[in-house]
Amino acid sequence: MIYNFSAGPGVLPEPVLREVQAEFLSYKQGVSIVEMSHRSDTFATIVEQLEARLRRLMQIPDDYAVLFLQGGATLQFSMVPMNLRESGRFAYLDSGIWSKKAIADAKHYGDVVVAGSSAAVKYRDLPAWPETISDVDYLHVTLNNTIEGTRYTKLPDTGVPIVADVSSNILAEAIDVKRYGLLYAGAQKNIGPAGLTLVIIRRDLIVDRDLPSYLAYSKHVDTLLNTPSTFSLYVAERVLAWVEGEGGVEAMERRNVEKSGLFYDALDASPLFHAVVSGKQRSLTNIPFTTGDAETDRAFQRFAEARGLIELGGHRSVGGLRASLYNAMPLEGVKRLIDVMHEFEQEGQDVSYKNV
Amino acid sequence: MIYNFSAGPGVLPEPVLREVQAEFLSYKQGVSIVEMSHRSDTFATIVEQLEARLRRLMQIPDDYAVLFLQGGATLQFSMVPMNLRESGRFAYLDSGIWSKKAIADAKHYGDVVVAGSSAAVKYRDLPAWPETISDVDYLHVTLNNTIEGTRYTKLPDTGVPIVADVSSNILAEAIDVKRYGLLYAGAQKNIGPAGLTLVIIRRDLIVDRDLPSYLAYSKHVDTLLNTPSTFSLYVAERVLAWVEGEGGVEAMERRNVEKSGLFYDALDASPLFHAVVSGKQRSLTNIPFTTGDAETDRAFQRFAEARGLIELGGHRSVGGLRASLYNAMPLEGVKRLIDVMHEFEQEGQDVSYKNV
Repeated sequence: MIYNFSAGPGVLPEPVLREVQAEFLSYKQGVSIVEMSHRSDTFATIVEQLEARLRRLMQIPDDYAVLFLQGGATLQFSMVPMNLRESGRFAYLDSGIWSKKAIADAKHYGDVVVAGSSAAVKYRDLPAWPETISDVDYLHVTLNNTIEGTRYTKLPDTGVPIVADVSSNILAEAIDVKRYGLLYAGAQKNIGPAGLTLVIIRRDLIVDRDLPSYLAYSKHVDTLLNTPSTFSLYVAERVLAWVEGEGGVEAMERRNVEKSGLFYDALDASPLFHAVVSGKQRSLTNIPFTTGDAETDRAFQRFAEARGLIELGGHRSVGGLRASLYNAMPLEGVKRLIDVMHEFEQEGQDVSYKNV
Repeated sequence: MIYNFSAGPGVLPEPVLREVQAEFLSYKQGVSIVEMSHRSDTFATIVEQLEARLRRLMQIPDDYAVLFLQGGATLQFSMVPMNLRESGRFAYLDSGIWSKKAIADAKHYGDVVVAGSSAAVKYRDLPAWPETISDVDYLHVTLNNTIEGTRYTKLPDTGVPIVADVSSNILAEAIDVKRYGLLYAGAQKNIGPAGLTLVIIRRDLIVDRDLPSYLAYSKHVDTLLNTPSTFSLYVAERVLAWVEGEGGVEAMERRNVEKSGLFYDALDASPLFHAVVSGKQRSLTNIPFTTGDAETDRAFQRFAEARGLIELGGHRSVGGLRASLYNAMPLEGVKRLIDVMHEFEQEGQDVSYKNV
């Protein structure tokens, strides 16, 4: 049994993978899903179902559009300021490496007001929400910081639309869509395979700005502008069906609270490992941890890998260790990880991993 | 047996689909390919192989970079002028609906010189290459017009870089890469599933232009900037292995000449159907045809569909009929289509399809 702690592309529900495999050569008695025109009736039905399920699961109000794009969150770092630009002043919370990248891209389209930053403490905690904010087109926040393992749980009342990158916590915890102007997410964590980017946008924010076709949100509303990554949409629809069958976002959040709680407790009690983030800012889905020593971290990663626990390395920009506990990670995977940590701690009393 | 004549996403080689299905749950004794980090060694090897195979198949010189992007050819309609802009004057050949869209997007970044257009004849033939062209940053051409079924076979000597959209003829016929400054193609016709866009660019044309990250070619060179549609890259690598095993581009072109020749001959001899394009401009891969009557065309489409020949409708913008004969379409599929046309012609002597 392999348990995959990758931060993304990450683990997907096994029943979905088996279903995809079974019908891969012939979808609905026809050709393979990957050979199917995105304009066919069969594929149109898949897209409709995908949107309907997402709307039900996230309780997306009717005055929000759902767009199916490509290019990942990274392309949204450009498309958001390009499309939401009114005054040309944008506020950003600088809470991690991904928000830093979003800020750099937004600067190409206007003036960025950094409304709060935790860069000085290497993003170990979250910048506070600004008490007041005005004269900006929107306030951008990375709701869950995949690399640093922090998350916002409270949303302030602001007079401006809040734009949130929810790539790593969408469908993993409840998100009150109507509090936001725009949400975007790469699919490859809790939604499905890479290749799909979701944008959920309040319709009054969609303005025809004379942008080139792919880059204009207005061209993607209620239609597929061009060929999407069809396989990614198809699998996403199946994953959302699985989430619904399992009890929806509420059930996912309950499980993720349980899984991450178990793991944080083990880290807090460990004589060797500790969590990088403390207190209420801890992410439910991405948990960086460390022994405090880079060589011992690497030794543990190899030790765990030899026992079927893979992708426990921290992001290449920060090092250390990280366990991503997305919806499809079973509780058993977390228990196994904790057992293997205990095993490593025991063996560590005998040998020095620094000399491996 | 179903034969799929879709213009894209289109038919893929059956041995590849079977291989993908067989290893879908566990790639190389590990997790599913769709759960695999794009930064893992295993996936890095897939990307290296994909690039190496493409370079061998197309004889791509070392001074060209290969980029793996998302967003389809449509996003390239913006990225090309954004990245290649020097003087801000671009020349375009207006040979079809896709080139028209490319022109519309390029106008956002500079002045477009339409160096030739067949719009007046509804793109039934190709505009001539301009005899001389200068003072432009590049000359853009859609080498094979997927909707209209025309293709360029000769390339003039120009003093400016030629940029070509080769979405529907890449790997289907020989393309002399070194004659071009830049080639781009959506994968979903001859390369693999949708979700991957290839850009092949002469390295001296890659200039750091202070563009936002996803939109700058310079940020994608020799690296994966962010998470690509990993499944699309993986299947593309397998399709390219199949093309190599079948004898490479030369063998594909030979087969495509045979298949399309057979089909054009049948159309030219038919009392009912005729090809829309005449003479040397006929595409090897996309063949629009018609009875001259919209209702009869639709009747034939239904007639063929009932016999397992699917996706024979013309593009929604032009109507009529179209058969796309990509690399993975076997000769038997074309023969079967011709047989079914004959059957329809026979029955047509008895009943009027206009009154169906």
